[in-house]
Amino acid sequence: MIDLTEITITDAVREQMARTTDPRLRQIMDAAVRHLHDFAREVKLSPAEWLDAIKFLTEVGHACTPVRQEFILLSDVLGVSALVNALHDKDAVELGTQTSLLGPFYRETAPEVAPGGCIVRNPTAPLVTMYGKVVDTAGNPIPNATVEVWQTDEHGLYDLQLDGVAQMDMRGRMKCDARGNYHFRTVRPLGYSIPLDGPVGKLVQAQARHGFRPSHVHFLIAAPGYRELVTALYFGDDDHVDSDTVFGVSASLVVRARDNDPESPIPGLAAVRYDFSLGRAAQQATGRVGADPTAMAGH
Amino acid sequence: MIDLTEITITDAVREQMARTTDPRLRQIMDAAVRHLHDFAREVKLSPAEWLDAIKFLTEVGHACTPVRQEFILLSDVLGVSALVNALHDKDAVELGTQTSLLGPFYRETAPEVAPGGCIVRNPTAPLVTMYGKVVDTAGNPIPNATVEVWQTDEHGLYDLQLDGVAQMDMRGRMKCDARGNYHFRTVRPLGYSIPLDGPVGKLVQAQARHGFRPSHVHFLIAAPGYRELVTALYFGDDDHVDSDTVFGVSASLVVRARDNDPESPIPGLAAVRYDFSLGRAAQQATGRVGADPTAMAGH
Repeated sequence: MIDLTEITITDAVREQMARTTDPRLRQIMDAAVRHLHDFAREVKLSPAEWLDAIKFLTEVGHACTPVRQEFILLSDVLGVSALVNALHDKDAVELGTQTSLLGPFYRETAPEVAPGGCIVRNPTAPLVTMYGKVVDTAGNPIPNATVEVWQTDEHGLYDLQLDGVAQMDMRGRMKCDARGNYHFRTVRPLGYSIPLDGPVGKLVQAQARHGFRPSHVHFLIAAPGYRELVTALYFGDDDHVDSDTVFGVSASLVVRARDNDPESPIPGLAAVRYDFSLGRAAQQATGRVGADPTAMAGH
Repeated sequence: MIDLTEITITDAVREQMARTTDPRLRQIMDAAVRHLHDFAREVKLSPAEWLDAIKFLTEVGHACTPVRQEFILLSDVLGVSALVNALHDKDAVELGTQTSLLGPFYRETAPEVAPGGCIVRNPTAPLVTMYGKVVDTAGNPIPNATVEVWQTDEHGLYDLQLDGVAQMDMRGRMKCDARGNYHFRTVRPLGYSIPLDGPVGKLVQAQARHGFRPSHVHFLIAAPGYRELVTALYFGDDDHVDSDTVFGVSASLVVRARDNDPESPIPGLAAVRYDFSLGRAAQQATGRVGADPTAMAGH
């Protein structure tokens, strides 16, 4: 018969879970219990504090709806989404462009955009050109790669926040040409605050964090035989580029718009150039932490 | 500008949380992030697995209602509730009787029971006597301590499961006499399965665990100047006494009913004797992980 103490409890739980049929579930839960118990022991978690944590998690669960995933937001603000992305990157056969967060605003069926087309229906700010190549890790162009982009408007809102699911805007899907080139026009997106009206927002505020994401454009790039790339480009002159609340920014993904770029395919507009590099595909599944919220039924 | 990797992300998050005003919240979240990140790195958590975890946590949140707390159940089956209890015990000024889980069936306003009274309205199984003393850690009786008890019926169900909140049964509140003695009659409770129809039950089944709690009677004992004692007594002849799904059992809390106990205050009935010992009170708050579910509004 066990003499239950704050030490013996951990092996008692591991022993009871040791017959788990799925070996990966066994491994994950064994590690989860060890780290969770270590955490509680380290901070000497009190019953009242643990009840507060349970209340918080319950509120996070209740804030999840078909169009809002508060647990992903929690994962984002604690850096777990970025960490899982980074682990997935490290696992790649070849390292292409660094990844970044998919976020909660991706849509699977964005409208087609012709080369040089504008992804914003009614722009009220100056247009900028975004252009570059999609190449392999040796620098060779990948012909006809698919490039999907999505972003906020010049006021910091996504179409899903403006128009719900009915009307897509500030997003598009395009094909690179035979030499791997893409280019399109858009407005410069504005940075924005994560939703602060839920339990995760309250936590972020209790942590004296500003809650902002810097201005950025999301990219999802795919080509047969290559690893799908989920990333984003961040504007380096945004005040929050060094303190993204969800830790999407990395130095290699920071860009600046140039006013007179002689190589830009559309003269007269400010231009952002970025070449994306794709590693070869392996057996692994997608690198997306997140999904089209309108396709995640039942939440 | 940070070069975001699976290593640098952890300090980036800690730095962003470092201005948290409440020092205890800062300490807890700092440790939570370190251990959570260590866990993800150790098992090389994949994006698909993390999304599965987020889906699971969302389901746990959605299973929480005003009368069901699925996150406490998750905490219970992972041994965190028992661990937090054990940490709280260790923190005591004086060690009295070992504590055990409050569980989700405590009610704050159980009916008064006279000495020797029966806490079951319509017993259909032989009655047993439970009796003993409430003493301090030196063994001196504590006069007039309040003893609250609650348990399942002979079929393994609590009143909340049979009658909802309307009618209390298999529970009672009594006063010890001037020499610290308590005694009451009851039926022997049956062990029972935790709820297996929710996400936590599915996890427990995927772990090839039986899901049962052994037969037990809950006690909450209080007296002015002493630390509130939340514990339970477990019947040693139950098949599951060595493998309680929620890790409430500890050797010091295991009892057996004796058929001919000459000291029993009610001759002719099987009897369980247990003396509870209370430590002196300190500044600490309650040792309850859990609460009367009908008093936890909004969940």
